[in-house]
Amino acid sequence: MALPADIRRAVLAQERDVSGLFDELRAGSPDPSGPGVCRDTFGVGEQFGYRVIEGVASGMGLEQRYDHAGNLFMTRPGADRNAPRLMMGSHLDSVANGGNFDGAAGVIAGLVAMRSLQTLGIRPKVDVTTMAIRAEESVWFAVSYIGSRSAFGVLPDGALEARRVDTGRTLAEHMAECGADVDSVRRGVASLQAKDIRAWVEVHIEQAPQLIEAGKSVAIGTGVPGNFRYPEIRIEGEWAHVGLPRRFRHDVVLAGSDFALGLDEIWKSAEANGLPMAFTIGRFHTDAREHALTKVAGEMSLSLDVRAYDARHLERLEADVLALVKDIEARRGVTFHLGRRTSADVAPSNPQLYGALTWAAGAAGIDTMPLASPASHDTATFTVAGVPSCMLFVRNANGSHNPHEAMEISDFLDTATVLATWLVEAAT
Amino acid sequence: MALPADIRRAVLAQERDVSGLFDELRAGSPDPSGPGVCRDTFGVGEQFGYRVIEGVASGMGLEQRYDHAGNLFMTRPGADRNAPRLMMGSHLDSVANGGNFDGAAGVIAGLVAMRSLQTLGIRPKVDVTTMAIRAEESVWFAVSYIGSRSAFGVLPDGALEARRVDTGRTLAEHMAECGADVDSVRRGVASLQAKDIRAWVEVHIEQAPQLIEAGKSVAIGTGVPGNFRYPEIRIEGEWAHVGLPRRFRHDVVLAGSDFALGLDEIWKSAEANGLPMAFTIGRFHTDAREHALTKVAGEMSLSLDVRAYDARHLERLEADVLALVKDIEARRGVTFHLGRRTSADVAPSNPQLYGALTWAAGAAGIDTMPLASPASHDTATFTVAGVPSCMLFVRNANGSHNPHEAMEISDFLDTATVLATWLVEAAT
Repeated sequence: MALPADIRRAVLAQERDVSGLFDELRAGSPDPSGPGVCRDTFGVGEQFGYRVIEGVASGMGLEQRYDHAGNLFMTRPGADRNAPRLMMGSHLDSVANGGNFDGAAGVIAGLVAMRSLQTLGIRPKVDVTTMAIRAEESVWFAVSYIGSRSAFGVLPDGALEARRVDTGRTLAEHMAECGADVDSVRRGVASLQAKDIRAWVEVHIEQAPQLIEAGKSVAIGTGVPGNFRYPEIRIEGEWAHVGLPRRFRHDVVLAGSDFALGLDEIWKSAEANGLPMAFTIGRFHTDAREHALTKVAGEMSLSLDVRAYDARHLERLEADVLALVKDIEARRGVTFHLGRRTSADVAPSNPQLYGALTWAAGAAGIDTMPLASPASHDTATFTVAGVPSCMLFVRNANGSHNPHEAMEISDFLDTATVLATWLVEAAT
Repeated sequence: MALPADIRRAVLAQERDVSGLFDELRAGSPDPSGPGVCRDTFGVGEQFGYRVIEGVASGMGLEQRYDHAGNLFMTRPGADRNAPRLMMGSHLDSVANGGNFDGAAGVIAGLVAMRSLQTLGIRPKVDVTTMAIRAEESVWFAVSYIGSRSAFGVLPDGALEARRVDTGRTLAEHMAECGADVDSVRRGVASLQAKDIRAWVEVHIEQAPQLIEAGKSVAIGTGVPGNFRYPEIRIEGEWAHVGLPRRFRHDVVLAGSDFALGLDEIWKSAEANGLPMAFTIGRFHTDAREHALTKVAGEMSLSLDVRAYDARHLERLEADVLALVKDIEARRGVTFHLGRRTSADVAPSNPQLYGALTWAAGAAGIDTMPLASPASHDTATFTVAGVPSCMLFVRNANGSHNPHEAMEISDFLDTATVLATWLVEAAT
């Protein structure tokens, strides 16, 4: 087997290519409506990303195949082509006014690790594939993991009829335009099966400053959280004149505030007990058609996303949320209409794979830390399908989903080194 | 002088006319966009109200005069036309999806009292005038007391350029369309002077169920609260990915909730100390162009109205609000932009007039109670201008500013009886 120092050298030798590739992606997918990039899901920006990545794969002489959903598989054939393969990758789309690294970094990291194999003259025992996944960002169609779930044949009913938030056209129309076989997606055809995949590793920029805080360049993911969501909660109180005394009011602003701060208390106490979680009320608003300076508000809408890493903890949290609702209803004389509920299962990392990546980092001399990803990722689809999966996170300032994402190339190369060291060990 | 029983009979005789008049107003000013009435400020609905009231005044043979701001004065001449006059009335406009009685009841009560004088064959010593005031509801232009302040020549600078919340057109444009002389309004011309007015009495429906709770039909107002308002507060935090851990967040939803519940605590403790007040956050919302299920909100807007009956208490409350803001800014790492501030002075009732109305109720055998109006009214403009002023409140279920206002005609006639009894005593 190759020495860790050789692998490190093979990765670092790609620094200029990597920088150039990120620059090329950024330059070709500017957001037309403002700052940042826009690689819109099944749209012009995402298509541009595929053209660039195809070019790199062609230069490396990789096998290229698009599946029925438009996902791209770039493969270096192994000695035994029928053995379960090693897979890496991430998604190529971005949010609007997004950053250049959320998604693309994971695809490029897979290619860097594969090129290191080539540089070192290693013929893998099994197929090694980097997958460039479609449509991970749920802002466009309000559907999660479109590309990876289509690959496993588990896109939920109705998703193809979801309309893109900006164009108003359906996912089916957008997919067809990008060359996908919509009928096969609808019938649940699978281009990936868990039994054919030995491991899946996704590299992703961190979306919080925990690595910056810890002074480390790379983290190994302990799992992707499960969640429950109530996207359309409505609180009904009573519209009233600004002159109504306190004891007669059914003020939804106070009820909504009780809800937000009640959840904050739940989070605080979970943190104190060492139980990672997050809640977010992303939308929080009185009714724009009716609210006014001189009216006590009688209706308010909000969205709720709650996530955690342990299925039983998530269940307890949902019970806590429902108890909080009942308490506020009784105290404020209001009614919560919870509306539609969606959920996603907890997706813990595979322990053996987590261990193998920890070993690889140690061998490469790169200091890492465990990180519970607070965000959702395609890796959850692989985990739920039964594929041994794990993630690597790259240090990144300013969060993600904004134009100010700031990943250092040296941190990216550290992460690619961990990935390549693992890949060499696993493939030989 | 007429006997109280005769005055009472003269009022009760108008029951059918009064019911018919309220029905006519309701039928002719439906809200086109939903339930309730809409007598929009300097718009189609308010104009309709004036046509109806003009018809009644013509039927009674009253002198009618519109001032430069479009306010209507309906006068029964007195023996001495140069002596300070007795005035009654209220406003004719309503909020959108409003009730039929907020405002109009006070205009009609004035006319009922004046018709009682006629029925009893009383020639008043001084002019008796009912005023139908324009544009009291501040929801339309976010400016208070437009009609009454224009009458006294004290409409604040810039008000004419305020834009109506629905049409986007300026107050100046809307006034001109309704026949007002905008130039005179701008120059501060006055159609009313305190020295020419002996007393002002405004009848208004109660906007809370305190009379219902007490089992009485009429209340006598002890004063109109002063207020301070911040109509356009903006909280600036940091937009972030739903995955951001708690310690890194600057979540405006939590900051806004802290603010609302902090004010609720201030109110609770003022109530415990017997200090009447009210605060209302009527608008409370994240930014509709940017908020989303999977984003930590970085910007939120809200309006604030705080009212109290004592000038020093109001000052202390404002200091408390500013201290609360500073505390939340420090704890949550957010910034409050308070924006525009407006205020109105505390307007206590005139003690002699309060006494005269109390005497009138006693003479008429109608049981009343004192009531600190928690709402703002045009009466505040008269008080601040130096006119001896007081209000009468009519029992009313379901509050006001909504389609479910439920004033009983018998309660209205009780109130008109008190008003007429006072008027006969004052005018003879």
